[in-house]
Amino acid sequence: MGKRFDGAQSASRSAPRSAGRWEEHRARFEAYLEGLVFSEEPRLETLVEAMRYSMLGGGKRVRPTLCMEVAEVFGAEPGLVLPSAAAIELIHTYSLIHDDLPAMDDDDFRRGRPTVHKKYGEAMAILAGDAFFGESLTLITVYQEGSSEQVLEVVRELAGSTGVNGMVGGQVIDMDQTGVGGAADPETLRMIHIYKTGALIKSSARIGAILAGAGEDEQAAVSEYAMEMGLCFQIVDDVLNATSTREALGKSAGSDAEQGKATFVGVYGLDGAKREADEAAEKALRALSTVDGDTSGLEELALFVRHRAN
Amino acid sequence: MGKRFDGAQSASRSAPRSAGRWEEHRARFEAYLEGLVFSEEPRLETLVEAMRYSMLGGGKRVRPTLCMEVAEVFGAEPGLVLPSAAAIELIHTYSLIHDDLPAMDDDDFRRGRPTVHKKYGEAMAILAGDAFFGESLTLITVYQEGSSEQVLEVVRELAGSTGVNGMVGGQVIDMDQTGVGGAADPETLRMIHIYKTGALIKSSARIGAILAGAGEDEQAAVSEYAMEMGLCFQIVDDVLNATSTREALGKSAGSDAEQGKATFVGVYGLDGAKREADEAAEKALRALSTVDGDTSGLEELALFVRHRAN
Repeated sequence: MGKRFDGAQSASRSAPRSAGRWEEHRARFEAYLEGLVFSEEPRLETLVEAMRYSMLGGGKRVRPTLCMEVAEVFGAEPGLVLPSAAAIELIHTYSLIHDDLPAMDDDDFRRGRPTVHKKYGEAMAILAGDAFFGESLTLITVYQEGSSEQVLEVVRELAGSTGVNGMVGGQVIDMDQTGVGGAADPETLRMIHIYKTGALIKSSARIGAILAGAGEDEQAAVSEYAMEMGLCFQIVDDVLNATSTREALGKSAGSDAEQGKATFVGVYGLDGAKREADEAAEKALRALSTVDGDTSGLEELALFVRHRAN
Repeated sequence: MGKRFDGAQSASRSAPRSAGRWEEHRARFEAYLEGLVFSEEPRLETLVEAMRYSMLGGGKRVRPTLCMEVAEVFGAEPGLVLPSAAAIELIHTYSLIHDDLPAMDDDDFRRGRPTVHKKYGEAMAILAGDAFFGESLTLITVYQEGSSEQVLEVVRELAGSTGVNGMVGGQVIDMDQTGVGGAADPETLRMIHIYKTGALIKSSARIGAILAGAGEDEQAAVSEYAMEMGLCFQIVDDVLNATSTREALGKSAGSDAEQGKATFVGVYGLDGAKREADEAAEKALRALSTVDGDTSGLEELALFVRHRAN
């Protein structure tokens, strides 16, 4: 099915007709995550506790619920993709733990609580992050249903979005630009976000499509949707960081500006950044127009991401 | 074929008949590793440089050459497994980088050169380690030949040996025991090494067998061989750490004792640790007795590991 982007709709803040769908994905996902047992070895109790502290800390779960929703769009039962969706969230969690470290962004708070290294020490934070990578692969290779080709494709997708040309490379460029602030060039800024967050969000959608048996064109369409939606998410994050209070955001407000980070607000100004966010949301919705399936849930997500308040 | 352990042979230091085989594997492996290009993006130049600095720093390459040799034992051309062998070495390299960090073992030297965080800073060391994980998965899922089932089995094997119940868990228990020194109990000490280094060495052998199409029994035999050989390697490491000078070892000699680390020398004494090493080497050789193939290269490796001087 798919719909053309409707500007008026994007301004609407009324409850979407199927808001419950995302809540349902999220509840199923939280229950699945809560049930993961990494080890019952007493000597590893603190490691497992640190991992659970970080992964059950109340994230938005954008990536795993996106993966579930895309699977449903292409006719799969969303529960099918839970192991891979959890793997994605664990990788995302590991990146947050490492990014918060004193040698990196040096953040003391995350989602309104002390960061992992503040609570468990730096060594345990590094190791909890490292452990998530192996555990995410176990989730995929041991628990994910599907043909060997499909499951292998899931790993291949994550390989690309988490290494040098994905999440890690994005963080490197981001740190390299710290201090540059508003003087960052738009191309570098875009690259930071496509690598650092866009790649894994894109993979979340693509993995849902792969496991549901969608074709190449359909995979490409939801990949583009997710990349633009992820960019929109990041731009809105910059806007919120520049304008929100710590209470509303659950982390240090204005910390990007303090650190001289390259942000969309710094490069485009507040109004310019909002226009960039609108454009990304529009592109995300346009990408869905070729998809043959009920994409209303994905449209809602793009609009939610554009207009979220925290 | 396979041979029974011969005590007299273990004491022999004469050149084995096919010593050139390991050198050949090593040379092919170094050339393959040297040729890996992670990115040509100028913004990622330092990251790639830090990765190459650490991975081309002259390690013994025990894991990848073991993988190649096992593949050959089961009739495969050793070059077949190069992508997976490189993936294993990258994961090993990442673990060394993270273990050396100030928050962890705080080592300034590795293989006679400054550690990655001393040369490139802590943030880059954390990220270079993280990047290796994604890149290792790309090597396996994009470049490794074999059926989807085989390649997926390779990933599954690495998943198990690198997470909570593998490398990372081992490092956690190891750090937890630091300060305990000679008072560590033998079971915990053994667990540290089976998790921290044994698991990945075992995977190296098992992956060679998987990709060569060996059966379950053969996979189990070389896994046991590798686990015992790896344990022997670690015990000898402890012995060398307690007795060698920094020049010979390329890292700070006696540093384990200084840090109060749980070691085999601390628990069993110097002579006792040597006897433990003999026993592990013997068990490794015995495990090969059921293998139908030319295991002489693997026997040589076990003897080399037992009698190496650095």
